[in-house]
Amino acid sequence: MGHGTNRVEDMASPNNGNTAPVTANARETIVEIHSVCLPPKKTTFQKLKKRFGDVFFPDDPLERFRNQTWRNKVILGLQSLFPIFTWGSQYDLKLLRSDVVSGLTIASLAIPQGISYAKLANLPPIVGLYSSFVPPLIYSVLGSSKHLAVGPVSIASLVMGSMLSESVSPTQDSILYLKLAFTSTFFAGLFQASLGLLRLGFVIDFLSKATLIGFTAGAAVIVSLQQLKGLLGIVHFTGKMQFIPVMSSVFSHRSEWSWETILMGLGFLAILLTTRHISMRKPKLFWISAASPLVSVVISTLLVFLIRNKTHAISFIGHLPKGLNPPSSNMLYFSGTHLALAIKTGIITGILSLTEGIAVGRTFASLKNYQVNGNKEMVAIGFMNMAGSCTSCYVTTGSFSRSAVNYNAGAKTAVSNIVMASAVLVTLLFLMPLFYYTPNLILAAIILTAVIGLIDYRAAYKLWKVDKFDFFTCMCSFFGVLLVSVPLGLAIAVGVSVLKILLHVTRPNTVEFGNIQGTQIYQSVKRYREASRIPGFLILAVESPIYFANSTYLQERILRWTREEETRIKENSGTTLKCIILDMTAVSSIDTSGIEAVFELRRRLEKQSLQLVLVNPVGSVMEKLHKSKIIESLGLSGLYLTVGEAVADLSSTWKAHGQI
Amino acid sequence: MGHGTNRVEDMASPNNGNTAPVTANARETIVEIHSVCLPPKKTTFQKLKKRFGDVFFPDDPLERFRNQTWRNKVILGLQSLFPIFTWGSQYDLKLLRSDVVSGLTIASLAIPQGISYAKLANLPPIVGLYSSFVPPLIYSVLGSSKHLAVGPVSIASLVMGSMLSESVSPTQDSILYLKLAFTSTFFAGLFQASLGLLRLGFVIDFLSKATLIGFTAGAAVIVSLQQLKGLLGIVHFTGKMQFIPVMSSVFSHRSEWSWETILMGLGFLAILLTTRHISMRKPKLFWISAASPLVSVVISTLLVFLIRNKTHAISFIGHLPKGLNPPSSNMLYFSGTHLALAIKTGIITGILSLTEGIAVGRTFASLKNYQVNGNKEMVAIGFMNMAGSCTSCYVTTGSFSRSAVNYNAGAKTAVSNIVMASAVLVTLLFLMPLFYYTPNLILAAIILTAVIGLIDYRAAYKLWKVDKFDFFTCMCSFFGVLLVSVPLGLAIAVGVSVLKILLHVTRPNTVEFGNIQGTQIYQSVKRYREASRIPGFLILAVESPIYFANSTYLQERILRWTREEETRIKENSGTTLKCIILDMTAVSSIDTSGIEAVFELRRRLEKQSLQLVLVNPVGSVMEKLHKSKIIESLGLSGLYLTVGEAVADLSSTWKAHGQI
Repeated sequence: MGHGTNRVEDMASPNNGNTAPVTANARETIVEIHSVCLPPKKTTFQKLKKRFGDVFFPDDPLERFRNQTWRNKVILGLQSLFPIFTWGSQYDLKLLRSDVVSGLTIASLAIPQGISYAKLANLPPIVGLYSSFVPPLIYSVLGSSKHLAVGPVSIASLVMGSMLSESVSPTQDSILYLKLAFTSTFFAGLFQASLGLLRLGFVIDFLSKATLIGFTAGAAVIVSLQQLKGLLGIVHFTGKMQFIPVMSSVFSHRSEWSWETILMGLGFLAILLTTRHISMRKPKLFWISAASPLVSVVISTLLVFLIRNKTHAISFIGHLPKGLNPPSSNMLYFSGTHLALAIKTGIITGILSLTEGIAVGRTFASLKNYQVNGNKEMVAIGFMNMAGSCTSCYVTTGSFSRSAVNYNAGAKTAVSNIVMASAVLVTLLFLMPLFYYTPNLILAAIILTAVIGLIDYRAAYKLWKVDKFDFFTCMCSFFGVLLVSVPLGLAIAVGVSVLKILLHVTRPNTVEFGNIQGTQIYQSVKRYREASRIPGFLILAVESPIYFANSTYLQERILRWTREEETRIKENSGTTLKCIILDMTAVSSIDTSGIEAVFELRRRLEKQSLQLVLVNPVGSVMEKLHKSKIIESLGLSGLYLTVGEAVADLSSTWKAHGQI
Repeated sequence: MGHGTNRVEDMASPNNGNTAPVTANARETIVEIHSVCLPPKKTTFQKLKKRFGDVFFPDDPLERFRNQTWRNKVILGLQSLFPIFTWGSQYDLKLLRSDVVSGLTIASLAIPQGISYAKLANLPPIVGLYSSFVPPLIYSVLGSSKHLAVGPVSIASLVMGSMLSESVSPTQDSILYLKLAFTSTFFAGLFQASLGLLRLGFVIDFLSKATLIGFTAGAAVIVSLQQLKGLLGIVHFTGKMQFIPVMSSVFSHRSEWSWETILMGLGFLAILLTTRHISMRKPKLFWISAASPLVSVVISTLLVFLIRNKTHAISFIGHLPKGLNPPSSNMLYFSGTHLALAIKTGIITGILSLTEGIAVGRTFASLKNYQVNGNKEMVAIGFMNMAGSCTSCYVTTGSFSRSAVNYNAGAKTAVSNIVMASAVLVTLLFLMPLFYYTPNLILAAIILTAVIGLIDYRAAYKLWKVDKFDFFTCMCSFFGVLLVSVPLGLAIAVGVSVLKILLHVTRPNTVEFGNIQGTQIYQSVKRYREASRIPGFLILAVESPIYFANSTYLQERILRWTREEETRIKENSGTTLKCIILDMTAVSSIDTSGIEAVFELRRRLEKQSLQLVLVNPVGSVMEKLHKSKIIESLGLSGLYLTVGEAVADLSSTWKAHGQI
């Protein structure tokens, strides 16, 4: 029986079937042993290159360019920079018809929502319309999603509004506030595009689903509470966002409540919620909820116009300037005391809107089975926001609600965004005076209807059911946002998620294995009743990489397993423990502290006359074990490919030496 | 063939041998399938309790108390609080003799080192002696290591000196500086004891070996450079610690260099280094290097005394007060502008000295095969420092160099610390005037000799050989400490280590498996030449938990594997791909994002008419898969215990349906 690193050569097995090659009798004497290989040799540079590729280019973006002519390479390059070239050449009238229908449908939603969300960000309502015009046009050229409907969204609007208004008053310092909003938008775009260009897209993965469910729900509650201002007709409302100041503000200004506003507001809210409910029940009737905001705006504006001389209790938007987006690059603000605030707001709104945009894009891409490239989308959304910041737009991204309507309305390509932008263009040029009498209460009702769906209590309940820790993360971000502040709540939730990873690494699981009778399968003795311990052996599976953060713990834990096993054996007067087998299958990585821990463990077990055997280390671990000469120190029979082979070989050796 | 969760019952196998139960011919038709079990049911509370126990009580400290009488429980409790009770009753004259010899040996080292290290921390030399008196006494009662020699150490002294003197001048504000030093010591002790009491000892594991090698070497270089002041006789030296200001200070004060000092300093340095070298070569001659500092102090003091009228170029210590440690609890400083600095210094010196003390304790415990309990040691070191801060001591811990001497000199119990403290007591009471003419250059030479051994270039080279990333961490902390600052350098290194864990989780490895002919073993096709792909199957092993941080990546990566495999098949015109098998053995944990990714993957593979099969999920993963109903959605043949069974069962099903 040849051992050592040259065992590779001993592998030619006598028969080539699917069965185990030796019979029950033969196994007692001849145990077939497979050696553990080292992975193919690679230089440090090659390894670094592979690792670099894995981290930054997991999608292998140059794959398509291989074995292509120069001409094709140029075309492919253009297509990958501007996805419009991919579908543009095959565009036809049939597609156009679908896109026009869906584009007009989302425009009817985008116009009232644009005005509402801008108010949420404490910006002039017209900025919301500007932001529904330029960014969709840019996205339709750069973006790779076919169903994303681009424009302002509630969460990013809320976050921008809350972060900026903490330092600058949007009413007293309105010009500075506007400057900061555009500057934040610029930095949001810069940050988004940089993440994409530097291929650091995985950063957004650190906002886990659980974090986002909690965060979105918390933000939705804050947004809803803010709408009490419009729905109750309160004039002097707090500028703060947290739960407690808002509620106290609502009840301390009870004298300002206006029954006309409340009556009309609740009426329209009921209509909007009912139409939303209908569309949710029957997705085919999506147009009911899609059309209802615009219809409500029209009806309420007419109502207010008709009673304009009877009551002044209902506040309305007032004058909106006509015309296209004015340039705003001169309003960007690159120095001064508030620059840090603008950058911070930009990064946070940037990452939030990016997360929403990419999640929405991926959702619909997966429904229609096409790919949305995360890094490319980041670049598209980033450039869209940078361009937006120079044309009086604030942060925009793909909105979930409008994209869903777009998808249901049958959108086929990004042309639906162009159609929507054209509708907004017509509105900006000709229809602005019509919004003069649009009451603020209808904007509040529209926002409320939109954000109420963001409180996904079912998802939170499912988190509770499946994973308590995820639920905890979710609650952290919910209450953090609601009670502390938006950026801090988010930071807490991300911190908790990262802590979970670290905790898992710091305190990994070890499982005792036993053999399932009549097989070569070794499984947890706690989990599989059929799995039974092998006399003389303690088989442990380590379920984690072995790192500096857990090497001491693992070493102590394995020694404790040994002690406990010896006590158990003593109580049952079983066979003396002779050998500890460590199944390393799940040890996906090891570092120098981990190697030292294995060394030390071997030394301490040896002092107790126990042998340590390693089984099936993965490639990278094997390489390091080899380099650190630990394999040699383990001795001839210290390394096996499977637990079964280790048990069989060691047992037969012991028998041969008369030790059993 | 029964499938589903009740497959547990089908397990009674026909024969109970160690062999595979079915023969080659039978296998084609009857495939034995083992079901995947759920782990035993546990309530949330039970799970939380287990998790809590794993995190905070991995050593199961109450294990020894089980099944004991009340009297024994009290005795065991006392012994675990005061380890002195464990060995105190068996203490005899023979042990005492060993301890007296070793205690006197380390005293001869501790006295000159105490004076020197106090100077390193910019404290009066006498504080170094005070710190070698009270803390060792307390440790001998509370500590569980038998060989730890307690007192001031170079790293903690340097860090305290550098951090405090950045804000407060030790010469101009000497009282405030002293107050801050004692206060930092108090907070260091409080922090250490809290870590131990709250059982958060694993925090120190985050200072990985690689980090510490770099940090220690960096600090040793800084300390060595600081000694140029004493060795060259420079009077006006920079208070800064970084490489560049120190070097410029050395060369800009060339006029202050004194040739007498340099000559004498280099002479003694050569002696000390030579004796150190001899003792390192022959550990039996440890007493040569142990005695040489004290001998050098005596000789150099005599020399300076003799030439005191000839030259004034050699500076000496001067007057030292006689008497025991004065109480200093009235000097603790719990309010005012420098409190934050004191707390920060306390935490950093606390964690550094803790790391050193515990590492040293573990090293010698492992050599003599006894246990040192990390959390208990933290409490002992913590209380020792808190008591020290009230008796004019600064931060102390177990010193590596003195503990090694203690061990080599034959120390048997903590009594050697008591003997050492007694020797210091005699010194403090009677011998202080003898140090009047002790030259500063000898202190510099002693420090230099002590710290030069801390630059462990061999360990750094081994890191480079075995693990490039660990080497990178090591270099980060080395250059961070040397060029930036001590706390920042440490923070950078810890950050890099944590980033490594996160990076590993974010971009996990996936490996393609093949069958090793003639066996049921499946292994990496890249690593094992004998492993060959099975037509129709793509077998992938995921080597990491599936978390929010990697779920998207893994999903995309597996789809890319599928694409690549299909291209490969097309090129070789092989059997069409039908099934993707995911070996989940190494997936030690999954969260809700991970589950969603598996769902989504299944959906997308299904659209390409590919089946997804999971193999061998571990207990906790299986539980979550079950709760999230993913098992049902995978269909009847979507879950197997081993890759071999999955391949055999699916192949035979396909054959039965004539699909092959």
